[in-house]
This record gives sequence, C-alpha cells and structure tokens, in this order.
Amino acid sequence: MAETASPRFLRPLAAPGEDIGQAIAFDPSHPLALDSGKTLSPFTVAYMTYGRLNDAKSNVVLVCHALTLDQFAAQRHPVTGKPGWWDVLVGPGKPIDTNRFFVVCANVLGGCMGTSGPAEIDPATGEPYGLNFPLVTVRDMVRAQAMLLDAMGIGEILCVIGGSMGGMQVLQWAASYPERVVSAVPIATAARHSAQNIAFHEVGRQAILADPDWKDGAYQHFNTQPSKGLAVARMAAHITYLSELALQRKFDRNLQDRAEISFGFDADFRIESYLRHQGTSFVDRFDANSYLYLTRAMDYFDLAAEYGGVLAETFRGTKSRFCIISFTSDWLFPTAENKRIAHALNAVAANVSFVEIATDRGHDAFLLDEPEMFATVRGFLNAVASSRDVK
Amino acid sequence: MAETASPRFLRPLAAPGEDIGQAIAFDPSHPLALDSGKTLSPFTVAYMTYGRLNDAKSNVVLVCHALTLDQFAAQRHPVTGKPGWWDVLVGPGKPIDTNRFFVVCANVLGGCMGTSGPAEIDPATGEPYGLNFPLVTVRDMVRAQAMLLDAMGIGEILCVIGGSMGGMQVLQWAASYPERVVSAVPIATAARHSAQNIAFHEVGRQAILADPDWKDGAYQHFNTQPSKGLAVARMAAHITYLSELALQRKFDRNLQDRAEISFGFDADFRIESYLRHQGTSFVDRFDANSYLYLTRAMDYFDLAAEYGGVLAETFRGTKSRFCIISFTSDWLFPTAENKRIAHALNAVAANVSFVEIATDRGHDAFLLDEPEMFATVRGFLNAVASSRDVK
Repeated sequence: MAETASPRFLRPLAAPGEDIGQAIAFDPSHPLALDSGKTLSPFTVAYMTYGRLNDAKSNVVLVCHALTLDQFAAQRHPVTGKPGWWDVLVGPGKPIDTNRFFVVCANVLGGCMGTSGPAEIDPATGEPYGLNFPLVTVRDMVRAQAMLLDAMGIGEILCVIGGSMGGMQVLQWAASYPERVVSAVPIATAARHSAQNIAFHEVGRQAILADPDWKDGAYQHFNTQPSKGLAVARMAAHITYLSELALQRKFDRNLQDRAEISFGFDADFRIESYLRHQGTSFVDRFDANSYLYLTRAMDYFDLAAEYGGVLAETFRGTKSRFCIISFTSDWLFPTAENKRIAHALNAVAANVSFVEIATDRGHDAFLLDEPEMFATVRGFLNAVASSRDVK
Repeated sequence: MAETASPRFLRPLAAPGEDIGQAIAFDPSHPLALDSGKTLSPFTVAYMTYGRLNDAKSNVVLVCHALTLDQFAAQRHPVTGKPGWWDVLVGPGKPIDTNRFFVVCANVLGGCMGTSGPAEIDPATGEPYGLNFPLVTVRDMVRAQAMLLDAMGIGEILCVIGGSMGGMQVLQWAASYPERVVSAVPIATAARHSAQNIAFHEVGRQAILADPDWKDGAYQHFNTQPSKGLAVARMAAHITYLSELALQRKFDRNLQDRAEISFGFDADFRIESYLRHQGTSFVDRFDANSYLYLTRAMDYFDLAAEYGGVLAETFRGTKSRFCIISFTSDWLFPTAENKRIAHALNAVAANVSFVEIATDRGHDAFLLDEPEMFATVRGFLNAVASSRDVK
C-alpha cells in the first residue's frame, strides 16, 4: 500500500484542491474481500486524525460516523465550512480529549468523501463506478477500517465509539475483532435494522430511483444528478431523526414569512421550509448512489445472523468493556433496541453499562449538545484509559 | 340543483359505465363559498347511502371518509371490487346497523371518486381543473356535505362518525353545525395537524412535484401520470399508518421469495415488496392532484384557530354527545391529540366519553377488525338512538 497525502480520484462533490484529510490507497497486494463474495481492489480509505498517537500506541479512539457524515468529526469541515459533526465531543479538553487521545475517523466504504465508493473512478474502466461498485456491508466497512489501522501500525483500540450507523460499526468491531477492542461505546443504534427502519430507507431509495436524472446510476456519465429524488429521500429520513415533540416545539404550526396560509402548495409552514432546505442542502454535499449503498448496508445489518440468530453468542468470551447509550425520544433506534444489546452482553457476563438519556431531541440527540452524554462518555473513557494506564 | 343518477364528467380512474353511486350536481343557483374566498360553482357531490331513511328522518348516520378513501364505506367497491373500507362496521346487524340507521357517505370535496376535485372537468374550460381547482379545507368539505344533506331534505344527523381526516370532518361538523349534530364520534384524529404530520405530507407532495410526469399538475392534458412520485408518496404515508410493532411482527427481516440477500437493490425484504405494492396499487385508484389537495386540507386543519386559539371555545354551548376513540399504538394521531379534544369538551361541560383502545396495529386500527371499537360504536349509537326514540 502507499500512503498519499492527496489521493487521485474523482470526487465530484469536493471542489478541486479541497482537503479530504489523509488517505491510504491499498494496492492490489492488499485486496478487500467483501461479504458479497466480491473483492475490491485497489481501494482507498480517506480519514482524519486528531491528537497525537502515544509511544505505546495505546491511546487510540476510533470514531465511526453515521450514514450521511464523514471523516471530519472535529474542527472545521473543509467542504461545508461548518464545525465537524462531533466537534462538541472531540477536541482538546472535550469528552473525547485530543490532548490525551489519538482520534481516528475514516470515511466509510461506499461513502463519498474520499474512501472508495460508487462516485469514485473505477480504476478498471476509468469511469465512475456507479452501480458497478460492489454492495458493501457494515462488516466490510469495519474490515476496511481494520486494514487502515493495520497500515497505521495500530493494533489495539482503546475505544471504538459512534452513533446510529456508527454504532453498528462499533458493534461489528466488538464482534469481529474482540481482541483489538478494549472498549466500545455504541450510541443510539441497534444490532439489526428493523422492518420500519428498512421501510423508511426503501422510500428514500425509491425516491432516488424514480428520478429520471438518476439514469440507472450512471448520472455522472450523463452529467446529471438525481437532485430531486435525493432531496425527497433526505426529507423523509430527516423526519425520523427528530422526535414528534421536538418538531412540535420547534415548528408547531408556525407560518414561514407570511401572516396567512396561501391556499396553495408553497411552503406555508416553517416545518415545510425547513424540510425543503434539509433536502436541497443535502444534495450539495452527498452522492445519491452513495446514499443507496449506505442505506442498503444498514438494512443488511443483523449482527446475530452471523451467530445463529442468538445475539449473545456474538459477544461470548469478550473482554471488551461496553457503554451503551440511548435516548428516550429516539424512535428510529429506540431504547428497546439498545437494551437488547445490553441484555445480550449481560447474558455472556460481559462488562457493560447502559445509560438512557432523557431528551426530547430524538435520534439526532447523539450529535447535539447533550451534557449527560458528554459526562457519560468522558467518565467511561477516563475509567478505561486509567485501567490501561493511558495518561 | 338537479339530482342525477349518473353525473356527466370525466372520471379518469373509473372505467366507463362503472357506478360511482349517487350524485347531486349543484347548479349556479347553489354556489359553494370556500374558505379561500373563492367560489366553486357548479359542483357535484357523489355519495352512497345504506339502509332506509325513516319517516321522521331521525336515523341518519353520516360517515366521513379518510384521505384516500371514498363514498363506498360498505358493500362491494365498484372500482376495486373489494369490500367497502368500513364494511366491518357498516351493514345489517353491524355496529352501524343499516337495518336501523340510514347511512350517508359522500366523497369529499377535492376527492377523485365523483365529487368535484382537481381531476374533474372544469365546466368553464371543458378541460380538467388540475391546479385551477381551488384549494379546499376540511370546513369546505363539511359545507358541501351540509348542502348535500339539505338537498336530501335531511336536517338533524343522529351521528356523524369517521376516522383520521374523517374525524377532522366530524369535529368540524360539531363546531360548524352544533344544532344539527345529535352525536359525534371522532376516531384516531386531532383538532389540528401537527408539525410532524405536516412534514410527512410535505414529503409526499414533494415526491409528486418532483415527478416530471406531473407536468405542473396538467398531466391529464398531456396524457401522463406522476405514478412514480405518487407511489413514493403513498409508501412514505403508509409507514405512518402502521405501528413499529405491527411492522416488526408482520415482516420482521423476512426475505421475499429468496433464501439470501441479493447484495443489490431488489426488494430483498418482504417489507420492501409490500411497500412497493402499496405504492403501485395506490396509483391505480387515486389521483395525484387530489392527493396534493387533500393532504393540504389536512395540514390546514386547526379547529381552534377559528376560535381565537382556544379549542374549548369551539364547542361552547354544544348539546351534542361525543364519543372519542383513540388507539394506543397510533403515532400519527396519538392518544394525546385525541385527549386534547376530550379535555376541551370537558372544559365546556359537554357530554363526552373517551375510549383508548389497546392495539398494536397503529393508525390503521380504525379500519380493521377491532372488537372494542365495534362494541364502543354499537353501544354509543344504541344509547343515542334510544335517547331520540329511534327504533
């Protein structure tokens, strides 16, 4: 493999010269065997690091990102110009303290911020992969991350942490590489995608597939973009990220820039205007095919299925410490799904703590200023670090 | 006005010669003044009746239908060939006993089963209305129903009953015509559409508007149909009609006609296949513009807004008897919204009973075989009928 500061491939969503962080290109001597039976080679993993790796390489915190996020967990995002998606949690003196820990966050396989995915150029053809990119699973994402850490010379991970699809990766890490995972913090997640979760994803995918500009996935070739379909997909998904109460409190039935309803189909209500904005702004920063691939990976996630359908077997014999966090108003990955994980861990006498945080912000709470989450993560990380003598 | 057995207008969704029931065409001497300030004239109301009007005209039960339903509450639906949407509840010996009661059910204004709506021919132009049809509100729907009953020589309604958007009409009837409403049964509804409800509707509308075959609402003129957009809208809405538990119990992560996942975007999961079927079959029976209009009418519904924002004022002085029914697992119109109505009625010392029915079938429970709902409706109707000496 070759470490490159600036990998050379098409990134249609990032302006030329923009930084995607660091990247490692794995050459054909390091192929990635996928769950589908296919092999991806060569491939690239783009990532960011924050903090400094200590000499013992014992202070690594691997942060796993959710569906539409990326490797820019902290500091300023080079494309959007906004703070990283977990800048509230990751940084000097913050709960994931970069004065103490070496934080690694990689763009997932199938993503669209530098890691190999459907929007990137297929080296075999010189054209964007599109639907020729192989379907990837959460386990494949984790395999690629493991290869990244191998390439960085990192063995043990002090803590692997993430929310939502990031939490799925955390669980997969604990299941696939128990000997490398000192501790794991899955947040607002599940060990399997539920029927309702799959249903919402399928609506989003059908919205994209219905857009004639999708062109059977070859829109880059035709220089189009299924913007309308992707925006609808995002709008539907966005509702599921918020609680009914949060929507009511924030928007109620308030009108947008008008005193009266228009008796028409304009965005009369603030909630409509907000959703439309969520849809259109998403299109500027995310690739439609990548959205198809990553939602599919989440749908396919069913950790117990690898172990005869018994979730506890996934974790039998684990020495990792777990801290599971859920939010009371999260109806996408409700507390019950998170508790299922805790029960499975209890069944094999694993070291697990479970925290349900009272909030009305819904699923998105894991990205927000939630002091109890901060305190929980800080306390857990401190305890784990002390147990491993990480200063 | 003129009573016609078979009104003459374009009904693109019903095959020629198919029965849409009865219809009354209101000529220009009976215009309909709308909330928007516009006037609709001439216009038609299509409806069905079941049972026999007694000599005292005291046994009328007005059934109000939900968003995508129609006047065919009972017996065989002439277009779909399936039982009417409330055939479990309406018929001889059933809770709404047509041996005893005279049931009227009218297609709502803006609908697409014979009552004037965007899919019908605008008499002023000879072309389908499309977006030239005026926006209508739930109050406008109820006004049209009141004109229908006037035309039928019916004054007092023994009971007005309906679920979801039908429940909104019930509440509007009780608010607008308290002297005509002996009793009212709003089921699984709300006195206002919430921010989350508006959000889901807006997703559906944007899916339709994104479909190039929508053609700014003039698809009939171009002989196209925004089938893909309407199907996506239906899929998103359909998820909200079912509880998470019902989806899990019915579909779980079961695969559709295959033993293994396909590592692709086929409908691997039964829930996907089911949703796609819901989408495509809906397109065969419903008009896309009608869907836009009726979702908008629901969004605009806010009963208290007519009365200074105080819901109780809506019902002050009412002599109607109310029976409010909600379902534990309905997250679209949750018990809390139904209780709000009960509280408002209590605040003005109205005669109200409130029943929350334990079920895991979600919002759609009001359309299903729910014995406790049947018993509640039967008991309430019996009591009301007895009080009015209806045999």
